[in-house]
Amino acid sequence: MKENEIYAYGKHALEEALAHAPDGTVKKVFLAETAGNDTLLGLLKKRGIAPAALSAKALSGAGVDASHQGVIALIDTSLLMIPFEKFLAELDVSMNPALALLGEIQDPHNVGAIVRSAAAFGLSGVLIPKDRQAPVTGAVIKASAGMVFRVPLVSIGNVNQTIRELKAKRFWIYGLSGEGANSLQKESFTEPSVFVVGNEGSGIREKTGELCDVMLRIPMHARTESLNAAVSAAIVMYQWSSQHPEALR
Amino acid sequence: MKENEIYAYGKHALEEALAHAPDGTVKKVFLAETAGNDTLLGLLKKRGIAPAALSAKALSGAGVDASHQGVIALIDTSLLMIPFEKFLAELDVSMNPALALLGEIQDPHNVGAIVRSAAAFGLSGVLIPKDRQAPVTGAVIKASAGMVFRVPLVSIGNVNQTIRELKAKRFWIYGLSGEGANSLQKESFTEPSVFVVGNEGSGIREKTGELCDVMLRIPMHARTESLNAAVSAAIVMYQWSSQHPEALR
Repeated sequence: MKENEIYAYGKHALEEALAHAPDGTVKKVFLAETAGNDTLLGLLKKRGIAPAALSAKALSGAGVDASHQGVIALIDTSLLMIPFEKFLAELDVSMNPALALLGEIQDPHNVGAIVRSAAAFGLSGVLIPKDRQAPVTGAVIKASAGMVFRVPLVSIGNVNQTIRELKAKRFWIYGLSGEGANSLQKESFTEPSVFVVGNEGSGIREKTGELCDVMLRIPMHARTESLNAAVSAAIVMYQWSSQHPEALR
Repeated sequence: MKENEIYAYGKHALEEALAHAPDGTVKKVFLAETAGNDTLLGLLKKRGIAPAALSAKALSGAGVDASHQGVIALIDTSLLMIPFEKFLAELDVSMNPALALLGEIQDPHNVGAIVRSAAAFGLSGVLIPKDRQAPVTGAVIKASAGMVFRVPLVSIGNVNQTIRELKAKRFWIYGLSGEGANSLQKESFTEPSVFVVGNEGSGIREKTGELCDVMLRIPMHARTESLNAAVSAAIVMYQWSSQHPEALR
């Protein structure tokens, strides 16, 4: 496997990839059986991809988990990730879009779950740093329920530099933190918004926190120290979308 | 290991168990090293538990994942689960409490995440069926960030019978469904509330759905078929808590 090549698995994930990812993203498909896979076979035909039989060897080499359903595919993530400069140049900021920015999220389940929620709540993209951040893998694709192929994934370099560029485009930067000064329930999201989600254990880095315009807190019971990172992100995006019904259309 | 005995792992999970679980819940503790574990050792002393050394054999027998941090413990879940009749008899319904009811959730990560969010948003208990439902295991404890030891976990038998008994106590039953008739954003939770979370793939069973007073929908973008079960549950509990700030005290 080359750099940027990963295995996706599961019928739903592959159907999403074939229906929505740019041409060339799905490089090879291995199928255990054709019976019962009519939708998948139709999508493969449209893309001009001939599936290979899924051998035990191909399966063990792919390193996928038990939920593969006899369907695995080699994916080129380089076609899936949009460079930040290109994304920003094409984004219509006048529509007051919202973005999620992953700040050193380590658990692939959380990365996938955040992408899934971002798709659900009408965000315009998920910004994913190249370093110190779980990359897009088969486990991420699965946890996203295939939504990695629907919501723009944006490749960014330095997080703080990215935030400065977004501020120059009049984005408001919201950091999620259990100790945030502002309660989510009282926030009005009237400007283009970026939601920065920090590391599961250590949260948002200090320097990044200093660049945030607002630190948002989700009110919770004293018995709890924190929420799961993907849950926090989902709640903030839900709250934003409840003020931006136009984003759900 | 006997029935009802599981291994919990990780420092934080065990600290929560020692600080909050009923006496007898933590049956044995294995520690790789004492250095750097002062809080844990203090809690063990208070409980009168002498930790054993963590051997490679004990570790492999426990079947825990890589995040054990050199700390594993044998837990008796029978002391952790409250029988439904006892729980209901002691619950003060006049305080308008809210409960989560797990309807055939299969993924331990989701079970744990729902318990963690229930603790955060001031719910009075999480109802867990004995059958067709992922039980409390080490993976659940980990995903709950130890909150299984803080929020009452209630053991229930038949889901539909449980719902009927809750309705007789004037609870309103809310089912979570992508096709629900009522938008979460417009709901006022003025009565004691139960939130029924269905299976990850198939949702809430038809008969259970018929018993629900309201089917709640979280508004989302047409590109998304569904939200993660734990994310849906968290958003509904968050919305409830925003109308019940008294539950967070």
